[in-house]
Amino acid sequence: MRALEEKICKEGKVYPGNVLKVGSFLNHQIDVPFMQLMGEEFHKLFQNEKITKVLTIETSGIPIACMVAQAFGVPVLFAKKNQTKNLSDDCYCTEIHSYTHGNDYQARIERQYLTAEDSVLVIDDFLANGAALVGLMDLIQQAGATCVGCGIAIEKAFQDGGKKLRDSGVRIESLARIASMDPETGIQFVQE
Amino acid sequence: MRALEEKICKEGKVYPGNVLKVGSFLNHQIDVPFMQLMGEEFHKLFQNEKITKVLTIETSGIPIACMVAQAFGVPVLFAKKNQTKNLSDDCYCTEIHSYTHGNDYQARIERQYLTAEDSVLVIDDFLANGAALVGLMDLIQQAGATCVGCGIAIEKAFQDGGKKLRDSGVRIESLARIASMDPETGIQFVQE
Repeated sequence: MRALEEKICKEGKVYPGNVLKVGSFLNHQIDVPFMQLMGEEFHKLFQNEKITKVLTIETSGIPIACMVAQAFGVPVLFAKKNQTKNLSDDCYCTEIHSYTHGNDYQARIERQYLTAEDSVLVIDDFLANGAALVGLMDLIQQAGATCVGCGIAIEKAFQDGGKKLRDSGVRIESLARIASMDPETGIQFVQE
Repeated sequence: MRALEEKICKEGKVYPGNVLKVGSFLNHQIDVPFMQLMGEEFHKLFQNEKITKVLTIETSGIPIACMVAQAFGVPVLFAKKNQTKNLSDDCYCTEIHSYTHGNDYQARIERQYLTAEDSVLVIDDFLANGAALVGLMDLIQQAGATCVGCGIAIEKAFQDGGKKLRDSGVRIESLARIASMDPETGIQFVQE
């Protein structure tokens, strides 16, 4: 998605340690009309699939997931990272390693909201090591639901999450795929 | 908003300790078309205000905030509860007590995304003790921005957050105001 690549180049900031900050539009401040364009792009990509639910994980995937769900006319379900009073004990649960925060956490969804009848599109803002997506697909599998694929805003294609998931047969559609990035030389995208 | 009261009665579940679960549409699974209706309702309520930004706090306020922002054509900014690599040090920061989780946490926004020129509508899913709203308004004040008011999906009007904030001169618009709730006798709304 050319508009996303341009926005990343214009507004994104690269820091040492492969950190890309896109807080101006994607994961702190949210450019809602732009999220809507991304939602429509994912709708085009997956329009031939039967989708009953959009699954994401808190927090930054939620705005995009809402726009995708709006385009498909289906609900969003987001996995929660913390056990709270508002979440029942009757959950599917998976453990995910966060490379960003350097810890492991539990991601949970209540069983009643994901069933064997569901055909699920997974949405997230970033794909790097793929740990979050693997966790979300584990939750889908526990529910006996079907995963039709994953829609990602920004894939760090120089990390191996996307390759491993595609090799295992998962359909991954990333709107921008970064081949390399560096605070000095900037961002290069994968030429497709 | 009658449709919200009906939805709460139909889908909400009351548990001891004043816990209301609305995970079927508001804060776990998200009924996106219904969030859009709520967004349009807030737009009606605040349409005479000049609004440049919608402010919320992760996580459950984000879907509603996105729909409100869509109606106004402005960005969302959400305060973050954790210090992450993706957040700069140049933040406004406030401490908030969570009655739900029984702890204190820091809420942060990057200074560059909120300025003295901003006229801010605060959006959140619940208002009970008002701690989150007070924290968000502290962040707005630190930035020298203006708060035009707060839009809340569900106010627990039997707790004192709404009264205290209104008494202090803040405009609070809640789409559903619960007068009392009980696992046995159900939910009663404030008659306005």
